[in-house]
Amino acid sequence: MTTKKAVILSSGGLDSTTVIAIAQRQGYQCYSLSFDYGQRHRVELDAAKRVAETLGVEEHKVVSLDLRMIGGSALTDNSIDVPELGEMGDAKIPVTYVPARNTIFLSIALGWAEVLEASAIFIGVNAVDYSGYPDCRPEYLEAFQSMANLATKASVEGRELTIYSPLLKLSKGEIIQLGRSLNVDYSITVSCYQADDQGRACGKCDSCRLRKAGFEAAEVADPTQYIN
Amino acid sequence: MTTKKAVILSSGGLDSTTVIAIAQRQGYQCYSLSFDYGQRHRVELDAAKRVAETLGVEEHKVVSLDLRMIGGSALTDNSIDVPELGEMGDAKIPVTYVPARNTIFLSIALGWAEVLEASAIFIGVNAVDYSGYPDCRPEYLEAFQSMANLATKASVEGRELTIYSPLLKLSKGEIIQLGRSLNVDYSITVSCYQADDQGRACGKCDSCRLRKAGFEAAEVADPTQYIN
Repeated sequence: MTTKKAVILSSGGLDSTTVIAIAQRQGYQCYSLSFDYGQRHRVELDAAKRVAETLGVEEHKVVSLDLRMIGGSALTDNSIDVPELGEMGDAKIPVTYVPARNTIFLSIALGWAEVLEASAIFIGVNAVDYSGYPDCRPEYLEAFQSMANLATKASVEGRELTIYSPLLKLSKGEIIQLGRSLNVDYSITVSCYQADDQGRACGKCDSCRLRKAGFEAAEVADPTQYIN
Repeated sequence: MTTKKAVILSSGGLDSTTVIAIAQRQGYQCYSLSFDYGQRHRVELDAAKRVAETLGVEEHKVVSLDLRMIGGSALTDNSIDVPELGEMGDAKIPVTYVPARNTIFLSIALGWAEVLEASAIFIGVNAVDYSGYPDCRPEYLEAFQSMANLATKASVEGRELTIYSPLLKLSKGEIIQLGRSLNVDYSITVSCYQADDQGRACGKCDSCRLRKAGFEAAEVADPTQYIN
């Protein structure tokens, strides 16, 4: 039996952790990839490492890349505030959008996938909660896959790469229900944009708000540790 | 009159320096972008800075990104030798190919272009000398552009981004002739894969061999400083 390998983009959050569990259930050997990109919520790197160990991935890598050089987002630029409860709704594209972030992360995943001879990259993007992010749209992901299948040595040699986004059309509640069915322990994940050093969540930012509402919708007890 | 802005991928070498001169001639305000990616030939970063100053670009950025984490190339992996004269011909794809490098570099350029509201990215890839590199093919560049025009906030707002590769179909000799007509001083550029600390070229690697033959074909005196 040949081994299927997949690179999984992991932020240590609820979504990408669910994605690792999905890929494992599908029989992939999983290689998780995180980025130290100057993000405010740096405890996510600790969470990603904890997730990799707990779920038993083959290898976990952290690639350093300073996106603060580029700026343009509340997540990487300290001069832009992270919006709190109720501030998100109006803007068409949230200030937490990081320019070309998914493209940059998927490109580096593509490089690692080529070295590993992996046949898949999994990304936990979601078009329901993050409909304002251009790089979470299905047509974007299809275009990335087409490009990826022209970009690499593997593609020249006839090996195909597939970009999977299994959460794309699920609500947060549905993601949590799916993860529970795969025995994902969400207490080890961190979603908050401004968690404290111990990974405790603020409970107020967009990401906390969506996560909280997800547990309510799924009728699952919220295991998140909040600051207050 | 509105200002046209372009991000130019710059390695400090002959090709990308010519590309900056072309973009300037076309009326673009140029923003040059280089990468500190763990490459062996680190003097290229000094060369890129010198080129940016000499040609008077608006801004020059160096983004750090450790592609050695990924491995798989003679340019970033010390366990793989850089081939010397005559060793290049046989392999379909050279060992100097870095997995997904152009995709990663173009993606980061895309992020900066979005912040700058630039309408173009220029890349000095060439399909003549580097026909073995999958990510130098025209169909790859077209696919990247299609993806880029779905990836960003700019694309949602209707602004188009174009990827230009003006050297794609030129021989090295033709590139040098074009650069000379734009008054490019090639003595400040470094192309060698294993130049010494002062930027002097080995004269033996693929890159040196192609550059040397280019000056001969163009019937232009070679200003390159060689170690021997």
